[in-house]
Amino acid sequence: MQRVEAEIKRLVDECGYDEVTRLFNMLSGGKRLRAKLILKIAQESKDAALLAAIVELIHAASLLHDDVIDEADTRRGKPSVNATEGSKTAVMLGDILYSKGFTELVGFDKAVAQTIAASVTALSKGEMMDVKMAEDFNADEQKYLDMLYLKTATLIEAAARAAALLVDKDADAHALYGRNLGLSFQIIDDILDITSDEATLGKPAMNDFVEGKCTLPYIYLYHALNDAEKERLVAAHGKKIDADESAWIRQKMDENKTIEKSFALAQKLSAQAQEAVAEDVELVGILDTMIKRSY
Amino acid sequence: MQRVEAEIKRLVDECGYDEVTRLFNMLSGGKRLRAKLILKIAQESKDAALLAAIVELIHAASLLHDDVIDEADTRRGKPSVNATEGSKTAVMLGDILYSKGFTELVGFDKAVAQTIAASVTALSKGEMMDVKMAEDFNADEQKYLDMLYLKTATLIEAAARAAALLVDKDADAHALYGRNLGLSFQIIDDILDITSDEATLGKPAMNDFVEGKCTLPYIYLYHALNDAEKERLVAAHGKKIDADESAWIRQKMDENKTIEKSFALAQKLSAQAQEAVAEDVELVGILDTMIKRSY
Repeated sequence: MQRVEAEIKRLVDECGYDEVTRLFNMLSGGKRLRAKLILKIAQESKDAALLAAIVELIHAASLLHDDVIDEADTRRGKPSVNATEGSKTAVMLGDILYSKGFTELVGFDKAVAQTIAASVTALSKGEMMDVKMAEDFNADEQKYLDMLYLKTATLIEAAARAAALLVDKDADAHALYGRNLGLSFQIIDDILDITSDEATLGKPAMNDFVEGKCTLPYIYLYHALNDAEKERLVAAHGKKIDADESAWIRQKMDENKTIEKSFALAQKLSAQAQEAVAEDVELVGILDTMIKRSY
Repeated sequence: MQRVEAEIKRLVDECGYDEVTRLFNMLSGGKRLRAKLILKIAQESKDAALLAAIVELIHAASLLHDDVIDEADTRRGKPSVNATEGSKTAVMLGDILYSKGFTELVGFDKAVAQTIAASVTALSKGEMMDVKMAEDFNADEQKYLDMLYLKTATLIEAAARAAALLVDKDADAHALYGRNLGLSFQIIDDILDITSDEATLGKPAMNDFVEGKCTLPYIYLYHALNDAEKERLVAAHGKKIDADESAWIRQKMDENKTIEKSFALAQKLSAQAQEAVAEDVELVGILDTMIKRSY
């Protein structure tokens, strides 16, 4: 990962504007999940570190714009760039990182470059769907999963596929692995938003629902409720909810085991991912750790 | 140009999200200067229309984000997307168009793709410099021209260079042409902001200066003034100015011929551009029309 960090630094410095370097250095690097995945899959390729750096720049750009769109004040436990430097700066920095990433991508084989580039269109589209869907209560599981795939799984899927292409491994198997890793990661994130306490989350529990996001436990709950209860759930959607209401939702979720059902889907997706790359112990291990994670 | 419009429509539809098509159709296509330039230079290439469509998508994306950053209410005489649909939607639509443009770009030769992609990093950097520079009175001509080059000339330069590469014409000569076309176009735009009336501009005259943008006539003026006058000019920068103050600035500009001096630079850059592509009557003609334009 040191080589990846060095490549990231080089690319940012190559933008040739000290303001960009200063702003970029304010960002928390995060877990570098996508970079680690690329290195694991394509470690024998001399281009793996550069590809990993490009994907991390693109990911950083997408988070900068996400935080503007979601008006998020924090990111990875630090104040977000839009909170400290303003939305405009976050938009501009995101544009610079996106285009620098794309520029470097052009040096790769067309199949690799196309895979990563197309996933960025998909993730931007997913972001737009997420915002649109938050306007109303969405009870459609497939519509939710389609959006989740675009918004949070496509870049991981593309990273895994591109890395496999670099070293002539099975591209489809690795793409499936990346896709399901991304999906199950996000489903667990959505569950933790409900089950963790405010101290662990750094924000109130059930914040997703307050922001209008109907994640799987809410979608499953909706279909398990009677008409009057459905109405009560929909009425609570997209606004601040008091303790009574959140306790009622939580109780109904427990009665109807909607969190367990959501977790079962994450496990099923994880198992499919593990099956796709069964011969690779390390990739299988990543999913084990992920599925067991708690904050 | 019909083929370009058809390609643009195809690329937007390929994003596969009706909300994107709906929003894109709200945009005014503008003059399609970059597309026309590509077609003129590379008309015999079968890829010219696609390249032109890609560059127009990228240009549209950059304008969407520009308007968010400048909080502009109108664009090409129509309400801007950020004004009617909100800043978030404008950011997301811009991201989708950028990434779709980049994805299609990957199909071109590396030199062509790299040229266009790198210019987007440059223009995003230019946008950030423009915003930063508007915070204070900037009296540095070179610094202003460097920013102008990045913000408004690089994509035109890249379009001309890439088109020349498509048909094996002199890439450097065409790049110089595009660069100077972009620069002189913008310098004349900056002059018109001072010399045109509100009815013609659709906004008050001297709006640039009110927004903090010290264009060439102001920079030249600063250096021509005595210390007390300099102070008065700097004091008026970046805020609403009353009729007395704007009349004084205009009178001082006339006395010191700073508009003429700015226009002379635009003419000089145009002449260099015409010289670079002297054998191409049509390209020479574009500049003649442009330098004589009035609103």
